[in-house]
Amino acid sequence: MGREVEVKAEVEEDLTERIERAGGKRLREVFQEDIYFRHPCRDFAERDEALRLRREGENYTLTFKGRRVGAGAKMREEIEVGLEDPDGTVSLLERLGFEKAFVIKKRRREFLVEGVLVSLDDVEGLGRFVEMEVLMKGDSLEEAERLKDRLLRVSEMLGIDKDKLTTESYLEMLVSKSSSSKHRT
Amino acid sequence: MGREVEVKAEVEEDLTERIERAGGKRLREVFQEDIYFRHPCRDFAERDEALRLRREGENYTLTFKGRRVGAGAKMREEIEVGLEDPDGTVSLLERLGFEKAFVIKKRRREFLVEGVLVSLDDVEGLGRFVEMEVLMKGDSLEEAERLKDRLLRVSEMLGIDKDKLTTESYLEMLVSKSSSSKHRT
Repeated sequence: MGREVEVKAEVEEDLTERIERAGGKRLREVFQEDIYFRHPCRDFAERDEALRLRREGENYTLTFKGRRVGAGAKMREEIEVGLEDPDGTVSLLERLGFEKAFVIKKRRREFLVEGVLVSLDDVEGLGRFVEMEVLMKGDSLEEAERLKDRLLRVSEMLGIDKDKLTTESYLEMLVSKSSSSKHRT
Repeated sequence: MGREVEVKAEVEEDLTERIERAGGKRLREVFQEDIYFRHPCRDFAERDEALRLRREGENYTLTFKGRRVGAGAKMREEIEVGLEDPDGTVSLLERLGFEKAFVIKKRRREFLVEGVLVSLDDVEGLGRFVEMEVLMKGDSLEEAERLKDRLLRVSEMLGIDKDKLTTESYLEMLVSKSSSSKHRT
């Protein structure tokens, strides 16, 4: 269980060089496939919650994401467990009434900049993004504010336009994109 | 995923000797602690389903049990997954709206008799039981009937009174016992 503070922005260009100039340390490159589930009797979107099954290579995790709090950067609770048997877990969730709702695929390159996890994401169907994230040790709003300031500092170092920063999730972007393309047809 | 056919009976005495006389092979002795959950929007009891987290020593499993079908012996679907992180899984289930409803603790001694798994159970607060169980290979009713006959044959070999056989689960026995004791007060 933990809380994270994060913010992201759509970017036009590859930020790798800027990250390296800022002294960032390259961590890893992964391909992530996320399945988001619908709850049998709760509107996750309305409650600002999510249930996600993530595949990273041979590793699978199941994550509950709590409601976002705070403005400017999002802080939210996450409960994440590793899965021994992802197929069995999906069958079990489905028998409990959960349904697969959305799939998000992305290539993620991770860097560490001033203690901040910076991810360069190529998200299928959405575009290129940079996401900045720190894990909280406690749960005070004071700590959240301090960490948010750190995110904004790193964001500035990387030359990201402050107006482009968003706390929207890829899931929300995908949902609003697919509903607006439905409206167009 | 699998289907099992099973039947149980309350017993007065220890059946170990009868099992050994019937050529039964001793398998193992375990202590099991089962937590049954309530679903956030479905009545598991009404639907004849269950969600169970079982601890056996250091091993944890999460199991969905489907509706029972057939009479005389029960056949039901089971989806079972091993858990890497049982505490995290309980937190996650609770955040999804599931609630711990009942806990059942038992000492179980397992034997193999004529291809049937025979368990002698000491169930806390309920008493002594013998449970007989076979896993199905397919899902035909014909196979279920054949396996049920095998269970009844073994049951006879062990001298179990046919009228005492039941397809009730320990959970149901515990629930009806706790509601009848509430009525008494």
